[in-house]
Amino acid sequence: MKVAKFGGSSMATATQLQKVGNIIQDDPARKIIVVSAPGKRTPDDVKITDLLIQLGEAYINGESYEQSYEKVIDRFREITEDLSLDIALLEDIEQTIKSVISQDASSIYKLDALKSIGEDSSAKILSAYLCSIGLDASYINPKDAGIIVSNDPGNAQILDGSFARIYNLREKVGILVIPGFFGYTEHGELMTFSRGGSDITGSIVAAGVKATLYENFTDVDSVYAVNPSIVANPKEIKTLTYKEMRELSYAGFSVFHDEALIPAFKEQIPVCIKNTNKPHLPGTNIVAEKKQDEKCVVGIASDTGFSSLYVSKYLMNREIGFGRKLLNILEDEGVSFEHAPSGIDDMSVIIRDSKLTKEKEANITKRIYDELHPDTIIMHRDLAMIMVVGEGLVSTVGVAQKATTALASANVNIEMINQGSSEVSMMFGIKAADLNRSVESLYHVFFD
Amino acid sequence: MKVAKFGGSSMATATQLQKVGNIIQDDPARKIIVVSAPGKRTPDDVKITDLLIQLGEAYINGESYEQSYEKVIDRFREITEDLSLDIALLEDIEQTIKSVISQDASSIYKLDALKSIGEDSSAKILSAYLCSIGLDASYINPKDAGIIVSNDPGNAQILDGSFARIYNLREKVGILVIPGFFGYTEHGELMTFSRGGSDITGSIVAAGVKATLYENFTDVDSVYAVNPSIVANPKEIKTLTYKEMRELSYAGFSVFHDEALIPAFKEQIPVCIKNTNKPHLPGTNIVAEKKQDEKCVVGIASDTGFSSLYVSKYLMNREIGFGRKLLNILEDEGVSFEHAPSGIDDMSVIIRDSKLTKEKEANITKRIYDELHPDTIIMHRDLAMIMVVGEGLVSTVGVAQKATTALASANVNIEMINQGSSEVSMMFGIKAADLNRSVESLYHVFFD
Repeated sequence: MKVAKFGGSSMATATQLQKVGNIIQDDPARKIIVVSAPGKRTPDDVKITDLLIQLGEAYINGESYEQSYEKVIDRFREITEDLSLDIALLEDIEQTIKSVISQDASSIYKLDALKSIGEDSSAKILSAYLCSIGLDASYINPKDAGIIVSNDPGNAQILDGSFARIYNLREKVGILVIPGFFGYTEHGELMTFSRGGSDITGSIVAAGVKATLYENFTDVDSVYAVNPSIVANPKEIKTLTYKEMRELSYAGFSVFHDEALIPAFKEQIPVCIKNTNKPHLPGTNIVAEKKQDEKCVVGIASDTGFSSLYVSKYLMNREIGFGRKLLNILEDEGVSFEHAPSGIDDMSVIIRDSKLTKEKEANITKRIYDELHPDTIIMHRDLAMIMVVGEGLVSTVGVAQKATTALASANVNIEMINQGSSEVSMMFGIKAADLNRSVESLYHVFFD
Repeated sequence: MKVAKFGGSSMATATQLQKVGNIIQDDPARKIIVVSAPGKRTPDDVKITDLLIQLGEAYINGESYEQSYEKVIDRFREITEDLSLDIALLEDIEQTIKSVISQDASSIYKLDALKSIGEDSSAKILSAYLCSIGLDASYINPKDAGIIVSNDPGNAQILDGSFARIYNLREKVGILVIPGFFGYTEHGELMTFSRGGSDITGSIVAAGVKATLYENFTDVDSVYAVNPSIVANPKEIKTLTYKEMRELSYAGFSVFHDEALIPAFKEQIPVCIKNTNKPHLPGTNIVAEKKQDEKCVVGIASDTGFSSLYVSKYLMNREIGFGRKLLNILEDEGVSFEHAPSGIDDMSVIIRDSKLTKEKEANITKRIYDELHPDTIIMHRDLAMIMVVGEGLVSTVGVAQKATTALASANVNIEMINQGSSEVSMMFGIKAADLNRSVESLYHVFFD
């Protein structure tokens, strides 16, 4: 049994939905389908979820929301009409929106319920369409699917008990279409996951039913070895391990929402990333383990927006607890760190800028001076991190040489190297201004 | 005013003492002389300090100590007779040893007092010899010199108040000869520094009198760019900064006892390492700052005896406080760490084997499992660390490339790289078995 998840671009128009129908029809093992809300039809289009948020926020602020409402209905009308589906379906969607708006609930819950309507309607439309082309399909609400979550609007977490309930979906006959992005609390309250949460639903359902494969249909042919906006037409990655995927997605790979695949990974469900528009292509397989001969550098990820807090103190390494106290101060301020290399008399802590407000920075600096009496504190800004990722990388002679040669030939000064903590990656810190030429040079050394 | 310290090999025989006399005579600025105990005359000889320790331990254990006693006296007799010094000097030394043995003191203090006799006698002999060749020299006891220390036998620490007292030595006339290695508590109890402590005395006195130069006379021509037992006839280092010296001595450079130079560095006293046997050579200068054009790799230090504690946990980087808690456990067990690189889901802590008993390791491992619930804990043993040291190294493009190329060409797998925390060094972790060929290859890349 396979679980297939279709993203927003696959649900955006009737034409796309027909492709989805063909893909489902092509393989009888595709029994459970998870869908996103209709996405953009053109680059400057607005996603239905964003229209629903506009609607919700207008309503909550007592402003006019009719325009957003009309836009949402128009989008669904276009799809249902183009697919020649029963008008009752559109009426049902309209009814759902109206009933959520008029619900007696606090704003935050109401907004969550409104946001979920994109996925919910998408699932209803797809199941109706699949029936219309002669398949035995039915819409399943996440509550009936067993997706029970924490009471945390906009950031719900799956509860452990859900997986056993979801397993029961295996008993159902026909194709099941489940809306992504939301679940229900044990008290029946609707809660959405964090943004991009249809990937989370797909992964949860695949884990729950112990699928033989979790297929994630999107609008790219595969995961690329490097960011295509930095290197044109980069190499496609055929196979990735879970660990490699995690390291790549950490540093700016945007195919996935960082934590979406965790439930599938935990159950060791193989994952395949495919393109709805070119389903004949092999896509990228993400698996628990790789064969020995496939081990090498698979990808280069990069991200900007890092700062480094450098602290030096003469004889620091004699002072038991210095590093711990420094990290303690960050923890007190709720600032997580990415990486904390330390030398004899020096320590650097790499922090994502997004986690470091001006106020937190001031508090942290003051406390370090007051409590640790360092000789120097320097905040280095505008750093970028590059991860060179690949299983077996740490045990291959010459990988560091290749990487540092690439950076030197691009005339890039390496601010930081971290190798040895992770088994599947090597990290380089550079100035953000040097990022593109660094990544290009690394790509050419490892992939040309 | 210069402070000159002469090491054990410079004090080992009459011939060596005559060289010391010539050196002192050569420069009238050499006003304060600090001396070690007589060292080995030949490679298989025994240092006087070791004979004194044997004597003390035999006495404490109620065993016969006469043989060690005779050996000590024989050594001093040889020196004093060869220098034609008054027989009263040898009698004074004998009397000192006897009075310490018969002292009513606890074993640990008695052992400290016995150990100090090597340096004390050395100073008395040198000052008598200097007088015999017509110089105005006098022996100064560390108590009279103002060297006041903590009550910590075998590991005394200088007290801050000492420096102002030592400054008064500037007022004294003639050449002052001070025994190294010990001081006195405020209550007048004799305490030795840690082993190699004559370097500590020299550095303290140089700082106290605010010397224009602290000359450290030893038996090597200079500090070498790499360990001469790994690379034959290595390049001599002309100038080092304090920071460079500290990074080099941390990782196995044995010219100095790690913390000996700290007092001199704190007062920004320039230091010169010279050879008693070839005083015309320039030696190595250690200074606070270097000129821009002298900035490059100055040395490669290496040391074995490291282990790495590797801990991995899925989603570690989401867990605020994980790193801090891990370091806290080490701190509770009194284990200081050298370096703690962290990745997304992994963290490694590098520890010196000498700090990690079997029992501590077991406690640490158990606590990490119980308190942090990691997926994996692995202790990697038999690691060696190599430091490539040089001011300006972090801001020079291509240094990492050169170093990793050297290691790859020696077919060495790099277990760990740490660059960016220290401003003057780059650290590589490798398997101890690969150490010699790694250092050789790095040396040839940076110095040939």
